[in-house]
Amino acid sequence: MTQLELAREGNISPQMEIVAQHEGIDVELVRQGVANGTIVVPANRRHQNLIPCGIGKGLTTKVNANIGTSSDLSSIDTELEKLRAAIDAGTDAVMDLSTGGDISAVRRAVINASSVPVGTVPVYQAGIKAITQRGAIVKMTVDDLFASIEDHINDGVDFLTMHCGVTQATVDRLRKQGRVTDVVSRGGAFLIGWMLHNDRENPLYEYYDRLLEIAEEADVTLSLGDGLRPGSLADASDHAQIEELLTIGELVQRARQAGVQAMVEGPGHLPLDQIEANVVMEKSICKGAPFYVLGPLVTDIAAGYDHITSAIGGAIAAAAGTDFLCYVTPAEHLSLPDAEDVREGVIASRIAAHAGDIVKGVKGARERDREMSLARKRLDWEEQIRLALDPKQARRIHGERASAGAACSMCGEFCAMELMEKYLGVSAPKGL
Amino acid sequence: MTQLELAREGNISPQMEIVAQHEGIDVELVRQGVANGTIVVPANRRHQNLIPCGIGKGLTTKVNANIGTSSDLSSIDTELEKLRAAIDAGTDAVMDLSTGGDISAVRRAVINASSVPVGTVPVYQAGIKAITQRGAIVKMTVDDLFASIEDHINDGVDFLTMHCGVTQATVDRLRKQGRVTDVVSRGGAFLIGWMLHNDRENPLYEYYDRLLEIAEEADVTLSLGDGLRPGSLADASDHAQIEELLTIGELVQRARQAGVQAMVEGPGHLPLDQIEANVVMEKSICKGAPFYVLGPLVTDIAAGYDHITSAIGGAIAAAAGTDFLCYVTPAEHLSLPDAEDVREGVIASRIAAHAGDIVKGVKGARERDREMSLARKRLDWEEQIRLALDPKQARRIHGERASAGAACSMCGEFCAMELMEKYLGVSAPKGL
Repeated sequence: MTQLELAREGNISPQMEIVAQHEGIDVELVRQGVANGTIVVPANRRHQNLIPCGIGKGLTTKVNANIGTSSDLSSIDTELEKLRAAIDAGTDAVMDLSTGGDISAVRRAVINASSVPVGTVPVYQAGIKAITQRGAIVKMTVDDLFASIEDHINDGVDFLTMHCGVTQATVDRLRKQGRVTDVVSRGGAFLIGWMLHNDRENPLYEYYDRLLEIAEEADVTLSLGDGLRPGSLADASDHAQIEELLTIGELVQRARQAGVQAMVEGPGHLPLDQIEANVVMEKSICKGAPFYVLGPLVTDIAAGYDHITSAIGGAIAAAAGTDFLCYVTPAEHLSLPDAEDVREGVIASRIAAHAGDIVKGVKGARERDREMSLARKRLDWEEQIRLALDPKQARRIHGERASAGAACSMCGEFCAMELMEKYLGVSAPKGL
Repeated sequence: MTQLELAREGNISPQMEIVAQHEGIDVELVRQGVANGTIVVPANRRHQNLIPCGIGKGLTTKVNANIGTSSDLSSIDTELEKLRAAIDAGTDAVMDLSTGGDISAVRRAVINASSVPVGTVPVYQAGIKAITQRGAIVKMTVDDLFASIEDHINDGVDFLTMHCGVTQATVDRLRKQGRVTDVVSRGGAFLIGWMLHNDRENPLYEYYDRLLEIAEEADVTLSLGDGLRPGSLADASDHAQIEELLTIGELVQRARQAGVQAMVEGPGHLPLDQIEANVVMEKSICKGAPFYVLGPLVTDIAAGYDHITSAIGGAIAAAAGTDFLCYVTPAEHLSLPDAEDVREGVIASRIAAHAGDIVKGVKGARERDREMSLARKRLDWEEQIRLALDPKQARRIHGERASAGAACSMCGEFCAMELMEKYLGVSAPKGL
């Protein structure tokens, strides 16, 4: 039985227990959330060493780090280094988006080394295999695609991005309306190419029941991918995107009926004032399914700093109810990220997630900020470093240009905290 | 006559012309904004080589970089290096917040080397002088304070942060309510210490007319500082902060009556969902005076990354109508920033400002994002780099891990843009 089926029948699984313990909440709340589909616990039975993690309503906002090879850079060691960087920086999940080198070997190595849930996009490998074996992506057969999905599941992947909502109807909307950046999702592009060339419906939509059947068997969580996500502010919240969301909303219901856990992927590039509306729409149309956004990026022009544009969008999205933030690294739009990019991306997304959790009222979120502020007032540097989101970085900067006094070198002798302690506190003003 | 007085009489100054040209808007809109106080043009007549800059309604959101020495680090050369880093990164203004070494010499060197408006906080120097000459900040006389203000004005400072709204009434509110981090503004702490020890009203409030008189004479813009700004999320939007804002609102009106340009400073540390309310309150209470916020920082726990926490808050603030963002660097709360911190801080704030400008509908903001997206679709890398907010950084990352093909190494052969060009574009599918 899947976590969803267990929860529905009133059972609490060991995975739910771990989630509840980690979040510091009653396990019954986790069970209820899983039962009604507002929480997912991606946990493939075949993923050894997994520490399960809950994603959804009432839980802390989670962060995902995308790693993986490309045709230009395809070393397993580099990917394992990126995995370690992501986990060290505190990511809650990783996705292996490899499209270069020995894709299966990379995936197996990543799953084997990962204590956090691992996601993949099987259509990448299916499409690339079709090029090698049949000469073109468009020659991929439906069985090829499903064989790839089963391979991934058998290797222990915990959640699969499946662009099931990319239908001929969405392509029609796309054509009628036009776009600045058409399709920026690789999975979406593979499938649309296939659909146009073969004049057929998306096999992930046409054979959705087949997908549900194999997902249910291994309790793999479906992450319903947004192949039509906007790749520029100009395309945000447009006809094609919302058409796809409507379809995804129907597919969420079918997944739940089949006992399959499902979450929903979202944009992408969005002007700041459209983020909340996108969250509200997803929650309404997809009946509260966990929302998993990429960024969102609030401007297109900050190449080199898209971890920051995404932290802005991600914080607003999280505050509005988004459950899961896919990080974006400084290398986005420019090159494949390296381990340092991965680290920076995870930290930026964790800041966004925490800023959102404060607003959401997630248990413990505000308390940590309060403790930090009390430590600041006491000029207790060890405690400030301990409470910092990235203690190593805080210690490095504090130590690099240290102060001769008790304060930091920013204000030196004229620290407001120290001054106020003298004037508002108990101690008598001395020297000042 | 000040810019405000000129504008009120229907005159267009050379400074207003430059602002209008830079913004690409009708100079009459600038004149009207200056006349009714919703725009300020900080431009001390004695600041040679200044390129004037407008701050306020209908204009692009501006960015300020704080530089300056502390008692721990007080080299003029370092400050000039930070000034260059800030200007190179595209700051619109700088503040010299020096509290260490030869404060006057640093200030003069900064003004001399700066093409952007320079701001200072004269009470720092007055307080420090009082320690040297009289043994304690609390022994500072009112004339000492005004002498310092006049020195700064005579040196050519374009805008002065003046904590005129820190009154005995705000201190009462502070005492009654209590706070986690009391007072984190250095200027606020200096003044409150002085007020408590001497049992007197804040001289900047008591002698506000004297301040207005000398500000009017040199056309120095007042930046009404928020000495009671919250220094932690726990203290956000509290009694003391809003009491001070009410007083500042009255002082804005008196400044306008005296022909003095005025803007208003704001928080500080704010939970994400309180930012818009703070902007709305400032605009209402201060009758549309330009709002100049520090951050805001949406969490207290990200020491080492407060340029990111501030970019999140700054973007939301800008989108809600904030006119001027004071950057925060990665060194905030830990040490005095160095030149690299300054660069990172300016870029992060510029991202926030631009994300806000897109929402505000500032002229040209969306167009640049659209051009970038079109260049992305064409895989035109030179154009993407040219349009990037920081072309050097974009070129570096793109070049470091370059692709063998026309796309970037992120997707290599499987670039969605390339695939869609084949399937939705004119060219025939080849090989795929």
